[in-house]
Amino acid sequence: MASATHLLTDELDIVIPTIRNLDFLEMWRPFLQPYHLIIVQDGDPSKTIKVPDGFDYELYNRNDINRILGPRSSCISFKDSACRCFGYMVSKKKYIFTIDDDCFVAQDPAGKPVNALEQHIKNLLSPSTPFFFNTLYDPYRDGADFVRGYPFSLREGVPTAVSHGLWLNIPDYDAPTQLVKPLERNTRFVDAVLTIPKGTLFPMCGMNLGFDRDLIGPAMYFGLMGDGQPIGRYDDMWAGWCIKVICDHLGLGVKTGLPYIYHSKASNPFVNLRKEYKGIFWQEEIIPFFQAAVLPKDCTTVQACYVELSKQVKEKLSKVDPYFDKLAEAMVTWIEAWDELNPTGPGAKLANGKAK
Amino acid sequence: MASATHLLTDELDIVIPTIRNLDFLEMWRPFLQPYHLIIVQDGDPSKTIKVPDGFDYELYNRNDINRILGPRSSCISFKDSACRCFGYMVSKKKYIFTIDDDCFVAQDPAGKPVNALEQHIKNLLSPSTPFFFNTLYDPYRDGADFVRGYPFSLREGVPTAVSHGLWLNIPDYDAPTQLVKPLERNTRFVDAVLTIPKGTLFPMCGMNLGFDRDLIGPAMYFGLMGDGQPIGRYDDMWAGWCIKVICDHLGLGVKTGLPYIYHSKASNPFVNLRKEYKGIFWQEEIIPFFQAAVLPKDCTTVQACYVELSKQVKEKLSKVDPYFDKLAEAMVTWIEAWDELNPTGPGAKLANGKAK
Repeated sequence: MASATHLLTDELDIVIPTIRNLDFLEMWRPFLQPYHLIIVQDGDPSKTIKVPDGFDYELYNRNDINRILGPRSSCISFKDSACRCFGYMVSKKKYIFTIDDDCFVAQDPAGKPVNALEQHIKNLLSPSTPFFFNTLYDPYRDGADFVRGYPFSLREGVPTAVSHGLWLNIPDYDAPTQLVKPLERNTRFVDAVLTIPKGTLFPMCGMNLGFDRDLIGPAMYFGLMGDGQPIGRYDDMWAGWCIKVICDHLGLGVKTGLPYIYHSKASNPFVNLRKEYKGIFWQEEIIPFFQAAVLPKDCTTVQACYVELSKQVKEKLSKVDPYFDKLAEAMVTWIEAWDELNPTGPGAKLANGKAK
Repeated sequence: MASATHLLTDELDIVIPTIRNLDFLEMWRPFLQPYHLIIVQDGDPSKTIKVPDGFDYELYNRNDINRILGPRSSCISFKDSACRCFGYMVSKKKYIFTIDDDCFVAQDPAGKPVNALEQHIKNLLSPSTPFFFNTLYDPYRDGADFVRGYPFSLREGVPTAVSHGLWLNIPDYDAPTQLVKPLERNTRFVDAVLTIPKGTLFPMCGMNLGFDRDLIGPAMYFGLMGDGQPIGRYDDMWAGWCIKVICDHLGLGVKTGLPYIYHSKASNPFVNLRKEYKGIFWQEEIIPFFQAAVLPKDCTTVQACYVELSKQVKEKLSKVDPYFDKLAEAMVTWIEAWDELNPTGPGAKLANGKAK
């Protein structure tokens, strides 16, 4: 596996949304320095973000986003970590690992530092098993396998599109739970990776996330959040609902569990409540919408699936709030921008230079 | 929790299928002695099974089963641990814990003996969350909760009907995997309990299993296996497919994960291959059948669901093998026998004496 990890240094970008100096990278140096970083600077573009010496990176601020996307930059959120998805769009690599700047290296129960990226790569390079549950969790891990009663026809699995990692210390709770349990810390290291079954939705957190850009990239849109929008902190949730419906439709896998990062800083629950409160109502209607969503058979690309989903959002969720009209349009704009920056077809690979 | 565990001594039976003296209970004494045992003796009824002193038990051999059930005893397997389900039928308690006689007390990573029954009780007394995946696993455990993005309307959960425990040391592999990996041992202690999502089937192992008899008992039929049957080692799998479809229909939960037991003895893979090989073919058709099975809305009791399922088995699986005709009939016989031994309606509780 070490060699596979090494191999991917040319095939993986690390995307970090931030408004401050990236001191947190010092702790990650042994694991992340070999990789290229795409830093998406949120907020005031005149501010300088310091990156520790030795890291290879490109940095985009709001002015860059506006210049590169022109009018389509409206689909990229401002003053919200949702802006990170711009980094997915300008990357030219096969894999993305995205991490928040308040996430540090976790330790396993033996006290060993956890190389989160290596585990994401393991998750992404081994298949998923969405059609039947394996009670010993990921059957492809060392020391595990498919248990008695697991159909042999399903043991090849399907390609893994997404690897969702977890968080020790500060758990990813909503504002009401933060308010009720201010002191709760996650200390339970669950040594498991598992495929989220087909037909099951999950709350995808963007804090510690790996994915295969070639397989699912165009659906990893983090929506319209933050400045000028009625909602925040639902960027990753939105992406999670969309990617799961599309992965299920296209026969791709989504894994959750390992790797852990150490999440250091609980965000302010009062601020969060203001950002979240419409989402807390809306998710009661959004989730049933996604649970019932069916994509037509002729949607065979991620882009086609995503545009179809945008139509269903407009049709079914606009009655919840006019915001969803705007979001549905932004979903289409996002795909247009993605396709412009990521042309396909003959010669596309050659033409596909860096956006900057 | 300790008091809840104590309380359940009057509400839980432990069902053990066996052909030998129950020396394995010595190791379990601190945890299991307060409970009543129902021992289902398989094989030669003239053999005497020794039970360690101090355990409270009733024991049924084949002669007892034939006497109690009369012609309906045909639905209880012989020379196969599937016979254990007779114990579920004659119990009058709300909860069942069933365990194999080659299962010993496991240790957690800190070296502490695992009280498997206590964990099953915790699993059964706390709700399940089948409609949406919680990435921090069981949200009702100490130190855990629902994560951001989990709909508040679903946080009450649903009643838990089944608690499926796992195995350290010898994993529950099929014969081909046993043959290919004779030395593989499960050493990974995954500190998690999770709900198997609605619509997802799983391979239920009967080695270390708890369930709520009132909620799902009549569906816990382990089928026709062993003596005179073309198949073995699919008893628990059959029950697992049936209970999951019925739990999904009735809005009940199925959990898997903790507790672990220490599984000491790998069964003979050559013998297992002979028992399993038809099942290895058949499961490729049986599982899609169960995945597609829909129960009508007017099936509101476990019995009604089970009889309906038996009709669908007859209709859809008989073409796989005539065995499924016989199995479908045995499913109906099982329900008739269950209802005879477990009358409901006015005065039923009073009339409900011990079967023996």
